[in-house]
Amino acid sequence: MSDSEPRDAATVDAFHRGAFWLVQPAAKGHRSGMDAMMLAAAVPSTFAGRLADLGAGAGAAGLAVAARCPQSHVVLVERSEDMAAFARLTLDHPSNATVSARAALLTADATLAGKARAAAGLADASFDFAIMNPPFNGERDRPTPDSLKREAHVMTDGMLEAWVRTAAAIVRPRGGFAAIIRPKSLRPLLATLGGRFGATEIVAIHPRADADAIRVIVRATRGSRATPVLKPPLILHGPDGHGFTARADAINNGRASLLGD
Amino acid sequence: MSDSEPRDAATVDAFHRGAFWLVQPAAKGHRSGMDAMMLAAAVPSTFAGRLADLGAGAGAAGLAVAARCPQSHVVLVERSEDMAAFARLTLDHPSNATVSARAALLTADATLAGKARAAAGLADASFDFAIMNPPFNGERDRPTPDSLKREAHVMTDGMLEAWVRTAAAIVRPRGGFAAIIRPKSLRPLLATLGGRFGATEIVAIHPRADADAIRVIVRATRGSRATPVLKPPLILHGPDGHGFTARADAINNGRASLLGD
Repeated sequence: MSDSEPRDAATVDAFHRGAFWLVQPAAKGHRSGMDAMMLAAAVPSTFAGRLADLGAGAGAAGLAVAARCPQSHVVLVERSEDMAAFARLTLDHPSNATVSARAALLTADATLAGKARAAAGLADASFDFAIMNPPFNGERDRPTPDSLKREAHVMTDGMLEAWVRTAAAIVRPRGGFAAIIRPKSLRPLLATLGGRFGATEIVAIHPRADADAIRVIVRATRGSRATPVLKPPLILHGPDGHGFTARADAINNGRASLLGD
Repeated sequence: MSDSEPRDAATVDAFHRGAFWLVQPAAKGHRSGMDAMMLAAAVPSTFAGRLADLGAGAGAAGLAVAARCPQSHVVLVERSEDMAAFARLTLDHPSNATVSARAALLTADATLAGKARAAAGLADASFDFAIMNPPFNGERDRPTPDSLKREAHVMTDGMLEAWVRTAAAIVRPRGGFAAIIRPKSLRPLLATLGGRFGATEIVAIHPRADADAIRVIVRATRGSRATPVLKPPLILHGPDGHGFTARADAINNGRASLLGD
């Protein structure tokens, strides 16, 4: 993939106040932002080991983990060759030398199973943690004419379960899992985690304290049988104005983990 | 049942600042309190029609609906003859004359199905709303030597699904459903609602803003296909001291509905 060039114009955006930079498509395709930062924040700051970012896109969430967790080694797993090319540019960007030293790119489909999955580089129990920001739209929902963006945003039937099955296969017993989802995916995600991951921690993300949640982060432990916990929600904005709450700002900038661990 | 006398000592406790009173067992059996008030608050204040309180115990949640919603008619459905006797005493208590005029008692098992359920008085599509505070402990969890309390607190395998199946049968299309559960029951409840109820609204109840949820209220609409919504959580206590937040106090005292409708 290293000689593959993105077909679209790129931007280079700072994350974690310049701790790392993301090369991503300027207009087409999925552009990363706060969702990726909140997902990465679900990984404990003390995390040490190998982490897979499934459907990594240009690498935002994975690199955010690498930047905050100095003992982590991150593998960006991306199916789209176009997006993987942006991830490659991200890893090769000179400003990212420190974090890229603990990051790698794997062009592979997170929905692969069995021998094909292992052959693609995703061996069973070879990771200590898996994170995912899965496509969030149903197939019939808000179709987009932009095919690169559609690939990042459209969840086909069974795709969420296939991603979770891959996470369950590649994460060692007692290893971690985290996903950021829309509220409408909470029921299918909880259903598909059952029997695979336990000790589920659910964090609702509300734009304001009195508004419905717009995202949910679900963290869980491979093979645990402990019952789910509903953690305090994350509130993004205070009652007056559009600024972030201190907690949301710290999470967005890699200064704090989501669950304080 | 009207001539059946409770075998245990009873207390008479005020709810909704004296709007109604509950006759309930003094020591043994399940004693109602805030859970029942929060469940009742999930019913819109404008609700008009027939509501079933499944597993009503002494009648706390059902009477709280009758007290707040002047156009409601409530049926307390209780399997235990002992608890139904307390519900009878509650309905017959002189202080409850106003609310009891719109309330009835049905001694029946919420897990009944098919013809047996209809024969017991729970006809298909005969209610506009069903509420439930199902037993919350797993069979192997914290067994209690008090058999009356055990009956109220122990959820046997499949009981939650049986209760939801009954609610789906007796509630008319577009009718309402609400349950108060422990967080550990969220996954099985969402799974069993699927295909029966939609437009699910989830409200986490946290003792304090920075503490894990201790209860969850789930409200849904019969036959709706709308996707779930995570509503703002209910916080019971402020950061300083043990007093209730204004919102929790209003809900506990029948001055406000949970979802402002």
